[in-house]
Amino acid sequence: MPRYKLVIEYDGAPFRGWQRQAADPSVQGAIEAAVTRFSGETQGLTCAGRTDSGVHATHQVAHLDLSKDWRTDVVRDALNAHLKRVPVSILSAEVVDPAFNARHWAIRRHYRYRILDRRSPPTFTRGQVWHVPWPLDAAAMHAAGQSLLGLHDFTAFRAAECQANSPMRTLDRLDVTRRPMGSMEEIVVETDARSFLHHQVRSMVGTLMLAGGGRLDAAGVADILASRDRSRCGPMAPAHGLCFVGVDYRPEINDFAFN
Amino acid sequence: MPRYKLVIEYDGAPFRGWQRQAADPSVQGAIEAAVTRFSGETQGLTCAGRTDSGVHATHQVAHLDLSKDWRTDVVRDALNAHLKRVPVSILSAEVVDPAFNARHWAIRRHYRYRILDRRSPPTFTRGQVWHVPWPLDAAAMHAAGQSLLGLHDFTAFRAAECQANSPMRTLDRLDVTRRPMGSMEEIVVETDARSFLHHQVRSMVGTLMLAGGGRLDAAGVADILASRDRSRCGPMAPAHGLCFVGVDYRPEINDFAFN
Repeated sequence: MPRYKLVIEYDGAPFRGWQRQAADPSVQGAIEAAVTRFSGETQGLTCAGRTDSGVHATHQVAHLDLSKDWRTDVVRDALNAHLKRVPVSILSAEVVDPAFNARHWAIRRHYRYRILDRRSPPTFTRGQVWHVPWPLDAAAMHAAGQSLLGLHDFTAFRAAECQANSPMRTLDRLDVTRRPMGSMEEIVVETDARSFLHHQVRSMVGTLMLAGGGRLDAAGVADILASRDRSRCGPMAPAHGLCFVGVDYRPEINDFAFN
Repeated sequence: MPRYKLVIEYDGAPFRGWQRQAADPSVQGAIEAAVTRFSGETQGLTCAGRTDSGVHATHQVAHLDLSKDWRTDVVRDALNAHLKRVPVSILSAEVVDPAFNARHWAIRRHYRYRILDRRSPPTFTRGQVWHVPWPLDAAAMHAAGQSLLGLHDFTAFRAAECQANSPMRTLDRLDVTRRPMGSMEEIVVETDARSFLHHQVRSMVGTLMLAGGGRLDAAGVADILASRDRSRCGPMAPAHGLCFVGVDYRPEINDFAFN
């Protein structure tokens, strides 16, 4: 029974997140239905990072067992053929070590958050960026964010419903850059960690947005972190600006993509 | 009566092109309706490059006369407020010389054509790229396209319904580059001319696609051009990959944006 590793891109807009739901559309549910239509099997998928409702991915990784030894390009193309009506695309399929686990073998997750920082509303990127119509200072956002790097109790940036055993997380990267592309004045937040708490990235981005408007500095962000008080963090940034962009595996498997 | 110059971004998908139509939605019609709701006036817009059905713009320019001397930021924000339900965004408004004409003063138009060159279908960029699922050689496309530069009779790349007086056009630029961004294997065609014939860019791109698959070289493209025979050019590339990205004015007004 070969194990396949799938790399998956999706627009999260029409889905209630990655995870299969009884009634609502989910990315996992859409792909599992395609697996059944293609192979007749009802195998479940396990992914590297379960994304929330509305969150996108350019490089999600999942594993899947199939009883038959299909060619990898057949698996990819057949799943895509059955996914035509939804914005989910299987970028690649490969046969991996049967012990490979897309979730447990992951040693680092990469997220990107896009902010459109201009007065005029988005058109092409509607649903993929957080539109903030007042000017933000990206350098100030970056500077303020650096106090979150390292091992901390992230309770202040954690959803009430977060089910992680511990609020301790190690943040490896939190870079904020402005990318002027014509009139598309984007601010991009890139962040890496072994794992994140529920809503941690969106809570951090909302807090950095306050720093970008001059209402917080690095010391202020450090104060919020130290308070472990969720009511003190900034407004949670909307889901549709967030994208899962890659995952690292140890020792030999590395997957990463910025799009 | 001040004349305003507007810079406009739009997703062409829901429109039957720029030009106002009796029954179908158009970009011009949507903006003119917003002008009326905002000012009570029924002034017409004139744009630099009338785009076809489904074609996008990141930097369209149009002029508009209003009888009242509105502040430019009020014009921009009021129009955007009335355009909320359509993917059209006024990026800026400024008061210009009353003799300024967005169409006649233009000395060069810039278009970009995006091809997604990968096996798997698009998700985020659906409707903004031409999906070509077999490998294209971007360098070969670029080389083949160079025989189109300069002053030529472009009859072979002209729509049957083209209303231009002459098929003679001077092509200033036709650059093809591959832009690998993670799994988004895009090939971008950038082309500039004082003006283009109807369907000229999409006809050129369809022909370059054949060159990218090894079916044509620079001499073959030159032959097609010299034949002035429309039946010999490649398939017309679909509208939704095309985007109007800028326009140059002489002497002092220059507008250009790549997004």
